[in-house]
Amino acid sequence: MQIAPPEIHVARLNALRTALERAGLDALVVTSLPNIAYLTGFFASASALIATGSELRLIGDGRYAEALAERARDFPAIRPIELPAGASYDQSVVDALAALRGLRVGFEAGHLTVRRHQFLTRELESAGWGDGLIATDDIVDGLRICKDRWEASRLRDGGERLSTLAKCILSNVLAGRTEADVAADIDAALRRAGFERPAFDTIVAAGPNAARPHGRAGQRRIEPGELVVIDFGGVLDGYCTDLTRTVIAGPDEPRGRRLIEQVIEAQAAAFAAVRPGVEPEAVDTAARESLGRAGLAEAFTHGTGHGLGLEIHEAPRVSKRRAGQVEPPLAAGMVLTLEPGAYFAGWGGVRIEDDVLVTEDGAEWLTDVPRA
Amino acid sequence: MQIAPPEIHVARLNALRTALERAGLDALVVTSLPNIAYLTGFFASASALIATGSELRLIGDGRYAEALAERARDFPAIRPIELPAGASYDQSVVDALAALRGLRVGFEAGHLTVRRHQFLTRELESAGWGDGLIATDDIVDGLRICKDRWEASRLRDGGERLSTLAKCILSNVLAGRTEADVAADIDAALRRAGFERPAFDTIVAAGPNAARPHGRAGQRRIEPGELVVIDFGGVLDGYCTDLTRTVIAGPDEPRGRRLIEQVIEAQAAAFAAVRPGVEPEAVDTAARESLGRAGLAEAFTHGTGHGLGLEIHEAPRVSKRRAGQVEPPLAAGMVLTLEPGAYFAGWGGVRIEDDVLVTEDGAEWLTDVPRA
Repeated sequence: MQIAPPEIHVARLNALRTALERAGLDALVVTSLPNIAYLTGFFASASALIATGSELRLIGDGRYAEALAERARDFPAIRPIELPAGASYDQSVVDALAALRGLRVGFEAGHLTVRRHQFLTRELESAGWGDGLIATDDIVDGLRICKDRWEASRLRDGGERLSTLAKCILSNVLAGRTEADVAADIDAALRRAGFERPAFDTIVAAGPNAARPHGRAGQRRIEPGELVVIDFGGVLDGYCTDLTRTVIAGPDEPRGRRLIEQVIEAQAAAFAAVRPGVEPEAVDTAARESLGRAGLAEAFTHGTGHGLGLEIHEAPRVSKRRAGQVEPPLAAGMVLTLEPGAYFAGWGGVRIEDDVLVTEDGAEWLTDVPRA
Repeated sequence: MQIAPPEIHVARLNALRTALERAGLDALVVTSLPNIAYLTGFFASASALIATGSELRLIGDGRYAEALAERARDFPAIRPIELPAGASYDQSVVDALAALRGLRVGFEAGHLTVRRHQFLTRELESAGWGDGLIATDDIVDGLRICKDRWEASRLRDGGERLSTLAKCILSNVLAGRTEADVAADIDAALRRAGFERPAFDTIVAAGPNAARPHGRAGQRRIEPGELVVIDFGGVLDGYCTDLTRTVIAGPDEPRGRRLIEQVIEAQAAAFAAVRPGVEPEAVDTAARESLGRAGLAEAFTHGTGHGLGLEIHEAPRVSKRRAGQVEPPLAAGMVLTLEPGAYFAGWGGVRIEDDVLVTEDGAEWLTDVPRA
């Protein structure tokens, strides 16, 4: 697994410093693991970070002792703290905060449970912190929305690898095979292509199962003429890619074929709407209106897409606006999926999904696989 | 995917009713997805639940419309609420709570972020709820610690399938292959054995990588005589199994062979300590003392095991006690991993892991694969 080079991490730390200043904070307790990975290059299943604008106090447990020391060697802003056996992460955060007493320290309100927050508040209070921690929203998440050049290169590389293996996989979605068997091929192909892991549970949904946008892959045998929705992705160097195609197994089936073409058209309409300055909702509307003109408005039961990066679902939402919620307009460097679909309970469904990078004057496809 | 039959869900709802009464609550807002799956049999990547002792108001979005309706048909205590397009789960929780105004309603403090809690509190207040929601700890998690007979049967089945495929996989960990290639075989074999997905990122760590308890699987080619730690598991009907073996690729290597035997011995010592009434820490101590007698105390850098069920890590922790934290004593029906290890940075490491069910008078192995 490749980790972003030190100069990229220095730039991210500089951006964090500016964001902290703007929020009137001296430091931030970071508890989101993707946010920690973004700032430090440390990918772990447990961790905590106390970040100032110049120093990253990074807590890891004994399982990660070597990885922690390596990261600190490569990126000297990291001060590694190895968790003593039997100690808790949150106690270790309290201990590390002792050095910052009297400063304005934030926490990630969207990434800390009420229980952990209660613990930190109580312990800091008994350590003589009058004010406790300050709730913040999206300080690091906000930095992650527009991808830097290293991230764009990883997502582009992932998109290419995914496209190459998809061509081979899709030609083997044959009647008589089970959904799980096709999914096994995909998961193995992802590994062999160099992905660290599937980005999510691979979906192979045949016939009536294709009507469930989140059906997975079961023991159902694919029947001739059925629609099969295949939705899969891999994680490369920490970054997620995501692709969906719908194929007709065996002899062509006119209703299915027509539906595939209508959904492809909706995706093209969404793509044409992508450029800096546009509201994400406008991209959703473009796909929705295209399907509406085909009489499929009711059949499109989810949003058009989502941001993609260290997480499989991240900002922005490309979807109907939620009451009271504001999405930032699209900007160069954002990476999105465009995945309209149409579903008919009991019969089947279609979804077509690709990943795009928002550029200065429009968008670039990151995945490239024949759609029909 | 099989879902627990209605009579099992009725029994769980009865147990929830008792737990709510004991906590002095009329209802609970459940936001942990595994807790929702446990109570309702609805497995989704997003959901929310308002549970009273007799009724389960289950919220799902359009992607899950069919699955939601099916669950309500099978288990009539479920009142399905389909989220309108563009609506948020938390707004829907607020709306559904209107019917419970004036009652004592709890929330899961360990499974709700500060941000979401602030939203619920604010919205309920403006809807005229004086008191807001009451913080609770582990009400549903507590029910899940001891597995019911359906869960035990799923975990036993999973352990058997995992053991069968492991025997085949382990004989193909050969010098010259890459870690990723072995991992690809494992992930595909899990699918073909009927597992829904890997329970976690499959680990294949060869040579010096084996010294990292959480190394994954990369492009490293396995060298003759190297230790290879292989840690993998699958999810069957929602339930996780977890197995680790360490093999020596190619010609035997005496230091590695001896280390494998010492870790096997530590695992046997841990197993001998498992029975109802014992503190989980005593099981950890048994493994730790065994490794200590072999001069390997320092090399064992993690806990002995963890609970296993709908999540890959759940209660109880089988590990050194954390300051201020109390683990319940072992009881029949708990399912644990026993996974001692010994690691030497730069050289390699060994871990041996199996799953056990705590029985009335000791423990039963759920996995059965030759250890050396």
